[in-house]
Amino acid sequence: MAEEAPRRRSRGGGGAARRAERTSIKIETAKYIQRNIPNFEVLTQEALETIEANADIILEEVGVNFVDNPAALQRWRDAGADVQGERVRIPRGLARKLCATAPAEFTQHARNPEKSVVIGGNNMVLAPVYGPPFVRDAKGGRRYATMEDFNKFVKLAYMSKWLHHSGGTVCEPTDIPVNKRHLDMLLAHMTLSDKPFMGSVTEPSRAQDSVDMCGILFGKEFVQNNTVMTSLTNINSPMTFDDVMMGSLEVYAANNQACIISPFIVGGAMAPVSVAGTLTQVLAEVMAGVAYSQLVRPGAPAIFGAFVSSIDMNSGAPTFGTPEASLVTYGAGQLARRLNLPFRSAGSFCGSKLPDAQAAYETANSLNMGLLSGVNFMLHSCGWLEGGLVADFEKFVMDADQLGTLHGLAKGVPVSEDDQAMDAIREVGPGGHYLGCAHTQANFKTAFWKSDLLDYKPFETWEEEGARDTYSLATSRVDYLLSNYQAPALDPAIREALEAFVAEKKAESPDAFM
Amino acid sequence: MAEEAPRRRSRGGGGAARRAERTSIKIETAKYIQRNIPNFEVLTQEALETIEANADIILEEVGVNFVDNPAALQRWRDAGADVQGERVRIPRGLARKLCATAPAEFTQHARNPEKSVVIGGNNMVLAPVYGPPFVRDAKGGRRYATMEDFNKFVKLAYMSKWLHHSGGTVCEPTDIPVNKRHLDMLLAHMTLSDKPFMGSVTEPSRAQDSVDMCGILFGKEFVQNNTVMTSLTNINSPMTFDDVMMGSLEVYAANNQACIISPFIVGGAMAPVSVAGTLTQVLAEVMAGVAYSQLVRPGAPAIFGAFVSSIDMNSGAPTFGTPEASLVTYGAGQLARRLNLPFRSAGSFCGSKLPDAQAAYETANSLNMGLLSGVNFMLHSCGWLEGGLVADFEKFVMDADQLGTLHGLAKGVPVSEDDQAMDAIREVGPGGHYLGCAHTQANFKTAFWKSDLLDYKPFETWEEEGARDTYSLATSRVDYLLSNYQAPALDPAIREALEAFVAEKKAESPDAFM
Repeated sequence: MAEEAPRRRSRGGGGAARRAERTSIKIETAKYIQRNIPNFEVLTQEALETIEANADIILEEVGVNFVDNPAALQRWRDAGADVQGERVRIPRGLARKLCATAPAEFTQHARNPEKSVVIGGNNMVLAPVYGPPFVRDAKGGRRYATMEDFNKFVKLAYMSKWLHHSGGTVCEPTDIPVNKRHLDMLLAHMTLSDKPFMGSVTEPSRAQDSVDMCGILFGKEFVQNNTVMTSLTNINSPMTFDDVMMGSLEVYAANNQACIISPFIVGGAMAPVSVAGTLTQVLAEVMAGVAYSQLVRPGAPAIFGAFVSSIDMNSGAPTFGTPEASLVTYGAGQLARRLNLPFRSAGSFCGSKLPDAQAAYETANSLNMGLLSGVNFMLHSCGWLEGGLVADFEKFVMDADQLGTLHGLAKGVPVSEDDQAMDAIREVGPGGHYLGCAHTQANFKTAFWKSDLLDYKPFETWEEEGARDTYSLATSRVDYLLSNYQAPALDPAIREALEAFVAEKKAESPDAFM
Repeated sequence: MAEEAPRRRSRGGGGAARRAERTSIKIETAKYIQRNIPNFEVLTQEALETIEANADIILEEVGVNFVDNPAALQRWRDAGADVQGERVRIPRGLARKLCATAPAEFTQHARNPEKSVVIGGNNMVLAPVYGPPFVRDAKGGRRYATMEDFNKFVKLAYMSKWLHHSGGTVCEPTDIPVNKRHLDMLLAHMTLSDKPFMGSVTEPSRAQDSVDMCGILFGKEFVQNNTVMTSLTNINSPMTFDDVMMGSLEVYAANNQACIISPFIVGGAMAPVSVAGTLTQVLAEVMAGVAYSQLVRPGAPAIFGAFVSSIDMNSGAPTFGTPEASLVTYGAGQLARRLNLPFRSAGSFCGSKLPDAQAAYETANSLNMGLLSGVNFMLHSCGWLEGGLVADFEKFVMDADQLGTLHGLAKGVPVSEDDQAMDAIREVGPGGHYLGCAHTQANFKTAFWKSDLLDYKPFETWEEEGARDTYSLATSRVDYLLSNYQAPALDPAIREALEAFVAEKKAESPDAFM
């Protein structure tokens, strides 16, 4: 399981790759976050036990639906569940018992072994926005996303220091046929970046294509023995598991690839309006989903997911960065840890139409809550706008910069003799100042997190330089990053094989746009 | 101590006041936050003990300076400290022992008893920005603050649901002589609002004026037996207590009024660059200050304050919303609780020049950290801009709206039978939806925090209505609030007495602008 990806695959085999490596700019990627701080927990022991007992009751008495999926129903029947039509009622304790074979943490390998990530435990892995059909930037406004936009986001994610993961559908490339875009998206992640990525979930056959392309990139045997994709399988809350998502999950689980099993909750619509009620339903749904993944292949990596927003009861719109969503997330983290499963939640959530102050308040609320709730895999950690309808270029780099604050906070408070700084306090004394003292000189370069984007200049300088707001600074940063992008080296033989696979698959079937 | 403010004082005695009361709009003010969530703690037991031991060493071996204050030096000498020149070295354990007589929580009375606040324990009281010499709004840009601006901020604070406190120097009214502006500021808080407020600290005589004006508003005897002001006395870090601040503290403590005793730290300049070192110095400074307040009057209310920012080592500018400041604040909260003292920290901190995305990220980071670190009194909770140089009108209402999220989060997760929502989950079942179910109908009005400012509309509606960003919405909200302001009723006799006091004091001395 913990085998290293073969070295040659990250180095590139040909002269062209070696030349590319020599001339490329050094791109710095932070190691995934390893928390030296506790998790923030809002549920008492009594609340936890109540919610867990209620979730068991839901599974046993109400049950969940597995839609258009006779094989799944048969697996549940064989496991001892009560199956009536598409309704699966799971005897008390069975789901929890099945969940126990899923690993508490696992390594997702990247083609560059230095960028492999460990998902679970005290770690947090950050991946970009997923799924928007639209993009926005200051120059072009709001428009349907294209493959060109997709490629730009993959490049930006590759160049973002605080992103550990390239993500999946960073936006929907709507100019590519629906039945073929997964191929181009995977090719982009595999060739434009060397960070880990996600597979397709929109058809079981596309999940299989994802596995096959990984076979080319990593080697078939490596893929069978290691996890090289983490993919997102949503539950249709309340308590419905559709055949498309479950079909993809079956492919991934059978191939030892990780799935995030994630209720998609707009509180008050897909779950009760109360926090405790939502947590109960989320727990029941995730237990059923993870249990099912273990019926497909015991030991397949599975992540406890929770996508949670509130609803604006006036407009019916989902709302983000709200306290109720935070409470659900903090509670879900506790429930995930008690199941010994990695936890996915939070992100750069906002309902704003623009990357303005509303977007930033809502996003900061979500990002902070994500770190403190013990999230292990944070999808949507940058670039999300307008309730997820839009992937925004400026917000992508703004959020990606803020992810640095999470890295800083996660360090906690070390108290080595040097950290205690008693010599500095003695040296400076009452009325002195620390700027010049030995301890400051020795430590100032690494002492404070520093933004690569935000403005810290004095007012007068800032005004002379054009009085630019964050949005304007972000536009410049997007341009700077994209104009300095250089692809990571890749063995040309692998690239050719991937391109041939994509061409062959595309030729196999006519274009479909629905 | 817990005596109610006399009823007549909040009702108003005259016909004019009664008429005003009848026609006034009902202004809703939320009760101060009572946390049903735990505090977030970053220091281990070992780290706490190390920092506490080091702080004792600082006090004993390095000591603190009490500048130009022979009476203070004498008090310390009498208490058993080693005083050499202005340096006070405090034997191990003495400061902590003296701190023990300060109350763990206290009531600060408002002239409207419904708006009195309890500071300490699980409570959090929110007060607006304090101190900026400049103001900014979209219409007038950045400019020196005037008394007219000051009055507007007091009105906005009065009308803000989530602000429990009217604050103090919400901006510096630079058009009023320095030696007289405290009179106009106090008169504004006392007449334009009925929320609790802060006293002047810029001269001991001005602190005495504050006490005397409270004597008129509340009655002299009431003031002597109750706390009606919470005032801010900063420590000149490192470890320097100047005569102005300490002189004001002496007045307030002698009159049983509360002081926030607050190191003012720009990390790397006024304290070591390390979090542990900063915490050590902060603890030593606060213990010395609180201990001193108890030498003046044992039992006088005192708050453990910590104003913390980082420094940008390139420009020397203070930076806000940074992870290191958050870690210091979380740790300081722990240290304050171990001293059994109320805790003041956090606020709507940002370094941005505009109320843009930078401002909102930084502010949201600070506000969330403030709630979770166990802050009991949050000064600067709205309206702070540009490192505290500017009080911004739009940001004031933007931040004040976000304070609602803290109220929501503090509720925690109740698990009553109704909260568990099992009937709803059974009623809706797999594939259903919750919008129409009985539990949702019964609870939706109070289930989710709702912004009074942010935009939740669908894109098309938002675009048709002018595609307004948060800043533009905030400009409208400031106008709306100010144009609907009506003063709370006040006994005309009290108003006249206050105005007479102010006029008399102003006539006593020539204007001073330095």
